[in-house]
Amino acid sequence: MTNGAWPISWDDVLRARERIAPYLTATPLRRYAALDEEIGARVLVKHDNHLPTNAFKARNAMSVISALAPDERKRGVIAATRGNHGAGLAWAGALVGVPVVICVPVGNNPEKNAAMRGFGAELIEEGRDYDEAAAIAARIAQERGLVVAHSTNDARVIAGAATITAEIIEQAAAMHERIDAMVVAVGGGSQAVGALVATRARATHIDVYGVQASGAAAIHDAWHAGEPRHYDRAQTFADGLATRSTYAMTFGALREGLRGFVKVDDAALAESVRILIRTTHNLVEGAGAAGLAGLRALRDQLAGKTVAVILSGANIDENSLRRVLNREI
Amino acid sequence: MTNGAWPISWDDVLRARERIAPYLTATPLRRYAALDEEIGARVLVKHDNHLPTNAFKARNAMSVISALAPDERKRGVIAATRGNHGAGLAWAGALVGVPVVICVPVGNNPEKNAAMRGFGAELIEEGRDYDEAAAIAARIAQERGLVVAHSTNDARVIAGAATITAEIIEQAAAMHERIDAMVVAVGGGSQAVGALVATRARATHIDVYGVQASGAAAIHDAWHAGEPRHYDRAQTFADGLATRSTYAMTFGALREGLRGFVKVDDAALAESVRILIRTTHNLVEGAGAAGLAGLRALRDQLAGKTVAVILSGANIDENSLRRVLNREI
Repeated sequence: MTNGAWPISWDDVLRARERIAPYLTATPLRRYAALDEEIGARVLVKHDNHLPTNAFKARNAMSVISALAPDERKRGVIAATRGNHGAGLAWAGALVGVPVVICVPVGNNPEKNAAMRGFGAELIEEGRDYDEAAAIAARIAQERGLVVAHSTNDARVIAGAATITAEIIEQAAAMHERIDAMVVAVGGGSQAVGALVATRARATHIDVYGVQASGAAAIHDAWHAGEPRHYDRAQTFADGLATRSTYAMTFGALREGLRGFVKVDDAALAESVRILIRTTHNLVEGAGAAGLAGLRALRDQLAGKTVAVILSGANIDENSLRRVLNREI
Repeated sequence: MTNGAWPISWDDVLRARERIAPYLTATPLRRYAALDEEIGARVLVKHDNHLPTNAFKARNAMSVISALAPDERKRGVIAATRGNHGAGLAWAGALVGVPVVICVPVGNNPEKNAAMRGFGAELIEEGRDYDEAAAIAARIAQERGLVVAHSTNDARVIAGAATITAEIIEQAAAMHERIDAMVVAVGGGSQAVGALVATRARATHIDVYGVQASGAAAIHDAWHAGEPRHYDRAQTFADGLATRSTYAMTFGALREGLRGFVKVDDAALAESVRILIRTTHNLVEGAGAAGLAGLRALRDQLAGKTVAVILSGANIDENSLRRVLNREI
């Protein structure tokens, strides 16, 4: 099914797409003249903020939930998350009738917690950060016999994320656009590895770049160093990017496939949130604006090119949004 | 085709729906547990902010543009607007190949102006307010032989707006929801008259309420007084609601059909913008949050009921959004 660095094949993507199709329609790919002018490139915006949880993670989660065996559906799933992966699982579980337990660290984004509870998930708030919440999830999974749905290290998750780029390639063709590059946010790497698998299968002319937050740059640093990294902390207002290590299922593919990998500080992420609000009038969280922030960092290389970025997620909390607009971030 | 107070028939709505279907897919109807809890009602949110111009006016505009005769298409259309109607026309015109001229008052929302120019419209900034821009549009229409596309007084516009509620009724049925009421923002009245035409034809159990901004309450006041009103000014940050008179094609139907009509001040509109951001993580302008603000004003009557509101548009400018989040509005 896979070989070498690649955790999934194009066939896995097609199968994921078929599984999630009854629940998720394709999201729009749009251009905004004001955004093009601001960036100095032809920017195609993929609106995964339109998905039911306002984030692409709905694809990943439904890809997992829809692939469960009947006895697994009955037992239920558990995951650690900072929010969007958990909201995706909670939404997908509610739709298909699978119990979902979510572990978040103490002090997690309260609006993301409310959304997960709103979809009916059991929420466990424990641990200092994502990694500690993940350890707690592993323990509870054993105690209760639940299926663990990892946010990154799961072939079904990566195949779900790859459906974004599969759609982009088809939509761009229908719009008579030839995409030169994509700049893709890397939290755990599912979105970027998904983009690599899809472009390698269907659009090899597209260069894929990765982008991480400077305060949570373990995968970025590891990519440049050529070996895995594990850091003690992650510090960024873009909670969806706040990871602190490489992941077994994505690092090899990122190493092999990415054309480049940049990092951007919180001020640059916040500026991209403001640009997207001003030019597209869509709400976006820090992680969701990272693709655009990476494009801005790569401005010299990508000036005048046609570049696709993924707008996802949108789940910024009100307080962070106010700080972004007040230029406090 | 029509009778008495009613400017359009259900057949007109079906025809508009057929005309716009190639260009606009149905927007989602969703529930948010955190919003229900905040409001104390079961709230169905219609996401017309997902449309290409982030506003329901894309329906109205495409309904007009797609109904033009071949010679009218060649001549082009002109309209006065504060923004969303003009953006809709500019978008629809660009898609179908019809030249579009838009007249806006001096000092209009700069981000809305940029969007209209971005879709390729010719923008004329002249006049103190909407009414003066409308007079300028009428003059230019004569000089150049353009078709005037009025934002409200046009049967095709109202039929386009009615497709929102036609979709809501079908989607609610598919979700096994029984809607008790809708609370609908009134700028010129196309959205509300559209809701009335659709509910009278397909869901007579739904009570439709209107809502206006206190600083632009001509139609509200006229509705309660039983006779048309024309005011000298309109003052609200919700520019999409800043009208100052009744309109010939909507007033009679609003009088006959609306179950009630409330007004809300800018502080209440701003609070609803914040609530929608916090609970749904969708951006919304003042006019787009007016349905929810009206529901909050009607809280005593509608507590515990199932109520649909339309989230549209989303084109708040960055400065107004900052003021809303800083509680300066």
